[in-house]
Amino acid sequence: METIIKEPKITLVGAGPGDPELLTIKGLKAIQKADVILYDALVNEELLDEAPDAKIIFVGKRRGQKALTQKEINSLIVDSALKYGHVVRLKGGDSFVFGRGFEEIQFIQLFGIPVDVIPGISSSIAVPALANIPVTHRGVSNHFTVITATLSDGSLNPEIDKLASLNGTVVVLMGLNKLDEIASLYAKAGKEKIPFAVISNGSLTSQRTVIGTAKSISKQVNLLRIPAPATIVVGEVVAISEIQNHSKNVTLNYN
Amino acid sequence: METIIKEPKITLVGAGPGDPELLTIKGLKAIQKADVILYDALVNEELLDEAPDAKIIFVGKRRGQKALTQKEINSLIVDSALKYGHVVRLKGGDSFVFGRGFEEIQFIQLFGIPVDVIPGISSSIAVPALANIPVTHRGVSNHFTVITATLSDGSLNPEIDKLASLNGTVVVLMGLNKLDEIASLYAKAGKEKIPFAVISNGSLTSQRTVIGTAKSISKQVNLLRIPAPATIVVGEVVAISEIQNHSKNVTLNYN
Repeated sequence: METIIKEPKITLVGAGPGDPELLTIKGLKAIQKADVILYDALVNEELLDEAPDAKIIFVGKRRGQKALTQKEINSLIVDSALKYGHVVRLKGGDSFVFGRGFEEIQFIQLFGIPVDVIPGISSSIAVPALANIPVTHRGVSNHFTVITATLSDGSLNPEIDKLASLNGTVVVLMGLNKLDEIASLYAKAGKEKIPFAVISNGSLTSQRTVIGTAKSISKQVNLLRIPAPATIVVGEVVAISEIQNHSKNVTLNYN
Repeated sequence: METIIKEPKITLVGAGPGDPELLTIKGLKAIQKADVILYDALVNEELLDEAPDAKIIFVGKRRGQKALTQKEINSLIVDSALKYGHVVRLKGGDSFVFGRGFEEIQFIQLFGIPVDVIPGISSSIAVPALANIPVTHRGVSNHFTVITATLSDGSLNPEIDKLASLNGTVVVLMGLNKLDEIASLYAKAGKEKIPFAVISNGSLTSQRTVIGTAKSISKQVNLLRIPAPATIVVGEVVAISEIQNHSKNVTLNYN
């Protein structure tokens, strides 16, 4: 009997915001050549069909189950590469936009295992786009910031307050439970009327968008019982979108 | 003789940062079904081979030729759709990240022609990533801002000064000729030692990265004669990358 020892190798692949066809061609090829795939909860499982012979390991959080810690995931990636060869680490969105991809790379490099990164479509840009909101638009917004709502202790990220005084678009991820606080910061900065959009389940068929202002948005979202995960977009780009928005995905104010 | 009149339809496709395999599967399928493709200078022309029967129109800027105005491009998109059917408007990066995609949509919608958007990998995130710089990293940067260096009158974007006082990563596009001014703003804000990276020809085989600080970067880039187009990344994420960076793409300081 012979054992073929494969060279360990790891590829971090960004799977994009949910629609499986928003994966890159390069990402698809990596999946097709994988010996092992470790994937997160936000990854569309249809993508796994592209690797029928690979060992598939779910490392996300599931109802009623304890999630793996980042440390456990790091070890599992390295162990899998040493044991089976080519590991594809498949993440929602892009690995470097709040994906903890670089932490995994730092760990992998301790073992001298070659690691490649294949960028993915980041939800931070694509989710607004699919709700017909451009993060930049000539004459309206010449910069955009992507930020997470909370610090690791659960408090509101204090940088959001500083961003409220700038003129660019702000995209807040994982912030639905802080929406009221965020909207209040803008109101305090004299921007009561600044447009807010809340996009729930972005890129999925269940996508819903609510559009309002710093003053109204929190109430609207509560009334409509908009579920997480949601992306919050703040800025005048939301208003230019609203003017011409007749798409079925868009709820214009509440009624 | 019969003439088949095709339904006009327009799809905006983001082609990604340069590597043709960083196109999405959805973008590829749109190209393969196009009757006409209008593409920009930053799009990799290999992608056009996927549409051998489509009419191909270049609308970018080429040496010695006058570029089409945005108005001319808008008209050409609509005319092409009315005449030939399915137009794919192929742009570098993502259509909504300084891609003027929404301006084109606004024009197209005046004619009632259906328009779809397929997001692309934005160079603003992917170019740093391919130079081994994550725009976010736990404990180092919990937000990032993408900004263009100049206003339409050629002056420095004043918002950069405000961003210099925040703690997130800043990615400046089209800013090589303003590098000295930008670095000075950070120095004036008391951040002389903040890490700067300048990535030239990102994602191409000619990619080069120079890493320095607000104090040193401008001199380094001049000495090395780093060419445009270049992406500037400012923030501590540049330093974590540098610590372990032994990649051939990276020039660590000048020597």
